[in-house]
Amino acid sequence: MKVERPHQPGDASAELPDDRVAAIRVAALRLFATQGYRATTMADIGAAVGIRGPSLYKHVSGKQVLLAEIMVGTMDALIAAHTEAVDSVDDTREQLRRAVEAHVRYHARRRFEAFVGNREIGSLEQPGRDRILRRRSAYERGFRELIERGVDEGVFTVRSARLVSYSILDMGMGVANWFHDGGEFSVDQLAYQYGDLALRLVAAATAGG
Amino acid sequence: MKVERPHQPGDASAELPDDRVAAIRVAALRLFATQGYRATTMADIGAAVGIRGPSLYKHVSGKQVLLAEIMVGTMDALIAAHTEAVDSVDDTREQLRRAVEAHVRYHARRRFEAFVGNREIGSLEQPGRDRILRRRSAYERGFRELIERGVDEGVFTVRSARLVSYSILDMGMGVANWFHDGGEFSVDQLAYQYGDLALRLVAAATAGG
Repeated sequence: MKVERPHQPGDASAELPDDRVAAIRVAALRLFATQGYRATTMADIGAAVGIRGPSLYKHVSGKQVLLAEIMVGTMDALIAAHTEAVDSVDDTREQLRRAVEAHVRYHARRRFEAFVGNREIGSLEQPGRDRILRRRSAYERGFRELIERGVDEGVFTVRSARLVSYSILDMGMGVANWFHDGGEFSVDQLAYQYGDLALRLVAAATAGG
Repeated sequence: MKVERPHQPGDASAELPDDRVAAIRVAALRLFATQGYRATTMADIGAAVGIRGPSLYKHVSGKQVLLAEIMVGTMDALIAAHTEAVDSVDDTREQLRRAVEAHVRYHARRRFEAFVGNREIGSLEQPGRDRILRRRSAYERGFRELIERGVDEGVFTVRSARLVSYSILDMGMGVANWFHDGGEFSVDQLAYQYGDLALRLVAAATAGG
């Protein structure tokens, strides 16, 4: 299994936005993802955007705020994509498929965010940590309730909706570890196949049957 | 979803072995898992085992060697458990089930090793890094070939054996992020349920049929 740190230069840092704060966030994301939060200093972040010394603090108050913003942004994007997927169709099977596709697309395309989100929860101080944990719970609950609804409707069969939701989330999060553009699969192919695999996990009755 | 750094005190460090080198390895594992490799210094490791200053280097040559030993040990343990599972039975379905159970048991019980193994590949210098990547490939290939054999035998149906093997591995690795003793599931319950879920992913013909 190929599990590597993200290293594609184009991932998130290729084009630094004009806006200083946005540039700082992009640099912080890249550094947190590639060398970890604890090993990254504000001086590293400043150097990456060409700001030296204390003037960086005119733009951001510190590493903790940057980490919290990144992680809140990740969870809000995932929750928004999930909601969009579920609201786009009425059939529970198709809702689950689209929600899984959205989850996989995000983890294939936003690998830096995925790395930081999955690894640095322990680096986050309160109350930022609880803010993230609440969002994660809400995101997981979205999948679990979809599965439970499918069970109630008789279209899914599972022993534990919780374990199936964890499995689906972990499968998709794993994509961030090994996916790279130009490999065996495109993002779309991945999304479709993981959607199919998720329907297998819930033993979905085949469409139309 | 609860994704937290491992923090149970009993996990790996409760009983320091008498042997100094073993104690150093245990301390390094705990520190690498909880605060990351880059943020851990040899002085931190020394402090954890009560060895000050340069005398630590009488026992180990440095952080890189400790990291490489931990990661090689993890992969060798996983590969040994996989081989034992596959060799224990002839039926391909049952081989896959037992291999998945072994994978899940390891990730539920050895969370520190799982954390370091999954996160610190980028911190490993050559040739240690290639040694680990070769073992990871071999471990993934074990699952993939099992799936392909089941397809050849007509008992499994998959579109991509590779994606299914990645999914199974990522589901199991995810367990290390959220599992804790005394929670909703025991290690055995998890192992059984993940074994069943893996057989769903390969659309295994039901036993005896």
